Amino acid sequence: MTDRYKPETEKNTASKGQDVIAGRNAVHEALRAGRTIDSLYVTRGQKTGSLAVLIAKAKQQGAAIKEADAKKLDFMCGNANHQGVVAVAAVKEYAVLEDIFQLAQERGEPPFIILADELEDPHNLGAILRTAECTGAHGVIIPKRRAAGLTYAVGKASAGAVEYVPVVRVTNMAAAVELLKEKGLWIYVTDMKGEPWCSVDYRGPVGLVIGSEGSGVSRLVKEKADFTVTLPMAGHIASLNASVACGVICYEIARQRQGLKAK
Amino acid sequence: MTDRYKPETEKNTASKGQDVIAGRNAVHEALRAGRTIDSLYVTRGQKTGSLAVLIAKAKQQGAAIKEADAKKLDFMCGNANHQGVVAVAAVKEYAVLEDIFQLAQERGEPPFIILADELEDPHNLGAILRTAECTGAHGVIIPKRRAAGLTYAVGKASAGAVEYVPVVRVTNMAAAVELLKEKGLWIYVTDMKGEPWCSVDYRGPVGLVIGSEGSGVSRLVKEKADFTVTLPMAGHIASLNASVACGVICYEIARQRQGLKAK
Repeated sequence: MTDRYKPETEKNTASKGQDVIAGRNAVHEALRAGRTIDSLYVTRGQKTGSLAVLIAKAKQQGAAIKEADAKKLDFMCGNANHQGVVAVAAVKEYAVLEDIFQLAQERGEPPFIILADELEDPHNLGAILRTAECTGAHGVIIPKRRAAGLTYAVGKASAGAVEYVPVVRVTNMAAAVELLKEKGLWIYVTDMKGEPWCSVDYRGPVGLVIGSEGSGVSRLVKEKADFTVTLPMAGHIASLNASVACGVICYEIARQRQGLKAK
Repeated sequence: MTDRYKPETEKNTASKGQDVIAGRNAVHEALRAGRTIDSLYVTRGQKTGSLAVLIAKAKQQGAAIKEADAKKLDFMCGNANHQGVVAVAAVKEYAVLEDIFQLAQERGEPPFIILADELEDPHNLGAILRTAECTGAHGVIIPKRRAAGLTYAVGKASAGAVEYVPVVRVTNMAAAVELLKEKGLWIYVTDMKGEPWCSVDYRGPVGLVIGSEGSGVSRLVKEKADFTVTLPMAGHIASLNASVACGVICYEIARQRQGLKAK
């Protein structure tokens, strides 16, 4: 774990972590200073005057703009005077898709990319970044909306992996899947009805889609998949934690690619 | 996910979740009503008078007694008037070791038990219970001290698995390992230097030890192990999230036991 994740406890980050910036002036200064903003939260309906300028600037720098109730903003900044705007800073800059492909090329390996579809739990996204790093994935793609970004909590849960794994944020996951297919990747999704995870070949260029905690992989993405793989469920519970499912498949990918023989 | 975990958000549980009972009278009533108490927190050094009676009663019912600073107790109950005592209720009663062996026998399978050594993160323990249920493990053993118990947060992270998987709490993990060995189990621990996780046989009676987030498997337990297995690390980060590591090995166990052929 790198030092920058150590000083604060997780509880802090929700209310007064270093990455929450409240108020028009403070957000303006952060943007001016070039800090990477993960998300800009504005009070629902309020998009006029100086706030409109802030929104435009944040958008230009790649931040996700999110409307929310004033109460949520109050909670995020520990009831500071936020004037209708709260920015959540990113612990790491986002990469572009080219970075991922370049990393694969540098290592002389077929690309191995994880697509985390609408994961809202920072623990899950953090654990997936960590798994990606440990299993040799070349990058992770996440959506801009309805998903955790590279916030402080995610960085902490990633145990420092956020520093090594390129993370790309896209506005449309289905379009990203389409693009990856054009670039020659095979797309693998997890679903209840599919082939056992260990019986398919992952030695070619892989795009592995991990579905959200609540609703799994979206229909649109599922339809574009080349392989549907299943983790058998032996008991009453119908699904695994998203980061655990990701870990199991990533290690099968690593096993096949490293040529490790299974018992 | 069962309904009982739905109404509250996770944030609630830290401060005012249903499972936090503050004050001598309230704790006394909860114990009298037969509620299962996971842990009883008392202010450091204060163990006299009516508090001594509460401690004795809670201990008798199997609760872990934990001394903490008054500040921690303040935080746990949202600054309510706790009078030096805060109880954390369990969402499920603990099982005994015999329950686990009975479950294995009923299913006609060699025992498959997960030992989660000092996991403090409720997300991790919850995800491990979920994985245990999905991969057909017969039970989970956790230590009484320095570890998350069957609290509301763990129940929620388990997505209901806590209802199905027997969880046994022991005072000494090394002694528990010794006992399992006497009962014929092979003990598997994870460590940096071991055989690849996929190259050992898990079809006999299995006790799988998962180490804590910080320090891994304790030396004493490691020394008692029959097999040391390794999850290869391809990058800079030296270890996986504990629940992810557990998931990868549990699925290899399930694969071998179900006779699924690996590619």
